[in-house]
Amino acid sequence: MGTALDQADSQKLTGMAEQLSQQLEQFRALGMQLDLTRGKPGTEQLDLSNALDGILQGGYHCGDGTDTRNYGGLDGITEARALFAGMLDVAPEDLLIGGNSSLTLMYQAVSFALYQGLAGEGSAWTNEPGTIKFLAPVPGYDRHFSICEQFGIDMITVDMDDNGPDMDQVEALLRQDPLIKGIWCVPRFSNPSGVTYSSEVVQRLARLPTIAGRHFRVFCDNAYSVHALDDDAPALDNIMQAFVEAGTEDALYLFGSTSKITFAGAGVAFVAMSPASLGNFKQQLAISQIGPDKVNQLRHVKFLRDSDHLKQHMRDHARLLKPRFDIVIKRLREGLGGWDIARWTEPRGGYFVSFDTLPGLAKTVIELAAGAGVALTPAGATFPYGEDPWNRNIRIAPSFPSLEDIDQAMQVFVTCVKLASVEQLLNHRQAETS
Amino acid sequence: MGTALDQADSQKLTGMAEQLSQQLEQFRALGMQLDLTRGKPGTEQLDLSNALDGILQGGYHCGDGTDTRNYGGLDGITEARALFAGMLDVAPEDLLIGGNSSLTLMYQAVSFALYQGLAGEGSAWTNEPGTIKFLAPVPGYDRHFSICEQFGIDMITVDMDDNGPDMDQVEALLRQDPLIKGIWCVPRFSNPSGVTYSSEVVQRLARLPTIAGRHFRVFCDNAYSVHALDDDAPALDNIMQAFVEAGTEDALYLFGSTSKITFAGAGVAFVAMSPASLGNFKQQLAISQIGPDKVNQLRHVKFLRDSDHLKQHMRDHARLLKPRFDIVIKRLREGLGGWDIARWTEPRGGYFVSFDTLPGLAKTVIELAAGAGVALTPAGATFPYGEDPWNRNIRIAPSFPSLEDIDQAMQVFVTCVKLASVEQLLNHRQAETS
Repeated sequence: MGTALDQADSQKLTGMAEQLSQQLEQFRALGMQLDLTRGKPGTEQLDLSNALDGILQGGYHCGDGTDTRNYGGLDGITEARALFAGMLDVAPEDLLIGGNSSLTLMYQAVSFALYQGLAGEGSAWTNEPGTIKFLAPVPGYDRHFSICEQFGIDMITVDMDDNGPDMDQVEALLRQDPLIKGIWCVPRFSNPSGVTYSSEVVQRLARLPTIAGRHFRVFCDNAYSVHALDDDAPALDNIMQAFVEAGTEDALYLFGSTSKITFAGAGVAFVAMSPASLGNFKQQLAISQIGPDKVNQLRHVKFLRDSDHLKQHMRDHARLLKPRFDIVIKRLREGLGGWDIARWTEPRGGYFVSFDTLPGLAKTVIELAAGAGVALTPAGATFPYGEDPWNRNIRIAPSFPSLEDIDQAMQVFVTCVKLASVEQLLNHRQAETS
Repeated sequence: MGTALDQADSQKLTGMAEQLSQQLEQFRALGMQLDLTRGKPGTEQLDLSNALDGILQGGYHCGDGTDTRNYGGLDGITEARALFAGMLDVAPEDLLIGGNSSLTLMYQAVSFALYQGLAGEGSAWTNEPGTIKFLAPVPGYDRHFSICEQFGIDMITVDMDDNGPDMDQVEALLRQDPLIKGIWCVPRFSNPSGVTYSSEVVQRLARLPTIAGRHFRVFCDNAYSVHALDDDAPALDNIMQAFVEAGTEDALYLFGSTSKITFAGAGVAFVAMSPASLGNFKQQLAISQIGPDKVNQLRHVKFLRDSDHLKQHMRDHARLLKPRFDIVIKRLREGLGGWDIARWTEPRGGYFVSFDTLPGLAKTVIELAAGAGVALTPAGATFPYGEDPWNRNIRIAPSFPSLEDIDQAMQVFVTCVKLASVEQLLNHRQAETS
């Protein structure tokens, strides 16, 4: 990157910078307040599930007679386990249905693993002779990283490529350091890069527990498992099956939720594990609660019904989401195509576009955009400790704003990227000649 | 206790034992399957809140425009904070509304206090030079004790009397040992004794942080704050106010929920804290979730409306619960009155009757009852580690079974208590004469 502009002389660059500054000034004068930070569903998406409240029509009982209103049922209701097992390609008995947040299930899993142990007596990570570490493929999801930070777990970054995490790096690190006890993965439509892990990556992931130290766990956040923007989007291999075939299934924690299927804050979350691991997890979980909200689980079953209906429902989401992604990509291509000053992902699903500026410019671009009324996710948010060593990655979240707002915001964004890049080049030239 | 039977001679006692055994045999022959173990609402109680699902009628927004369907809102919605603040006698801004389980909020509070610290940098209990301890007034709630057990927190029991925990014991222990960092309290209609803490106990509770070591916390589980069986039941002093007046409000965690108001498994839970403590708690909580189920919070506000309506709703619960408690008390009085072989509480609210056999007989009574088809909470469940040092306390939970079932179960129970007591006395006599 960064070669096309190089051919322009300094005078031309100065002219370009002035022109771009003027454009930005014009945007600023419009007094816009646009927001591309939030990976949350738009209002029309939420409306798709408005039938949830009231769908029970007084029928609060499950097929097996369970009264969803009362206490108990740590596993979740049978109907919900059957329905959501399909979403994660697992058997219903491997699935536990929790409350409204898969992040909470992940947090609990890390907490139990650290302090109580997830494989019985003596398996707590705190028994290990040193600081526990996790591998963090980057760019990644800040809330995964926050969990590690809160528990004092060190993070080691590994690069993401078009097939998923760089497995050579991952395997080499695990061979070196048995205190690495976990890895964060978003295997389909990764946050933020949109990558779906290749078959090879899934296979190698499944063999990691044979390389790693004891009680290693793969934290697989399959948050976007059915969140394709089109029917031909790349599929993900059956992850649980890969682990079963490798004989490592006890090391897999596979999370999912309906947060971006029904209501972001009022959906249901779930986790799949091997029978042994689920038994251990439930033993710990039972101390912290009497059971999940089974009424809401039953609502979800009545509303989403079966895999076919779920698929149709996700097409309705895609119908609302895809035009938003299309505008982002269109503005990026039109504005930056051929400039060679940026790269970005063109995802087939999920909620984000991952954008890389020239090294060192992410913060500048975000500040420039903020000055013109466009809020972007803070630079570094996609890296552990909020520190992007190249200061170049920006996560663009187009789901929530209107099409018009995205269109305007992306024009501002493109202008900021160009301006920052041109000014950087000018500064380099000056530094060289002074 | 245990003096009335003493006047009977051994021959008479043997005859009584035979007669009681025959009675029990007759019960056994009926093949009953009755259950007095579960402190959960009965079906008719749950039916009182059936209007919850569907009550929103498509109106998913709060008064301030918050879309309850989307992410966010760690504090809970404004309307719910206003409504439930009244239940705990606190200001709305001191209240955080969580998910479906106050037990989870307690678990989180203990976890954060231990590992991250609830008063900023360096305040984690794990920094203390030794094993952390909690005071456990007994008999108490087994799930409080389980949390301590899971986290390796030692428990020291203190006696409950008719005014609450024995505060002389509590204060003496705190003066001795600065590693005691918490005390479990159920201040109104205590589980299982039904006691409501006296004004003096509340006052002394509020001054405990001035005696205790640093970062001491009072875990006050006000689970039955509005759960009176009659309108004249003893009231509880304003707990938060007592702590504010003592200048110790940062040490109070005051929990509540609608689990026994609406749906046991699908209600909303909350916790009140001082602004400083709530700020610290939220900082930790934010790592483990993106926000609570605000849709369900809004449902609860629409359904319970205001304090007056809530009060009426609780009268409807009492109408279903009181006859159940009345049968328990009637059978105990009729069956055991004058025998001087047991004592029991006659609560004015809550969910339990606490029953003490003669020392050493709880397990025997429970086994005898089980043999006749009546399930009782395991002996020791109301004590830390499941160990009742006197083996005498039995928790009776009459909310769930039908009136007829309670009546039958209590007849069996009374027979078992008598039989066990007579046999114990006979054994003592034999031991003395041999």
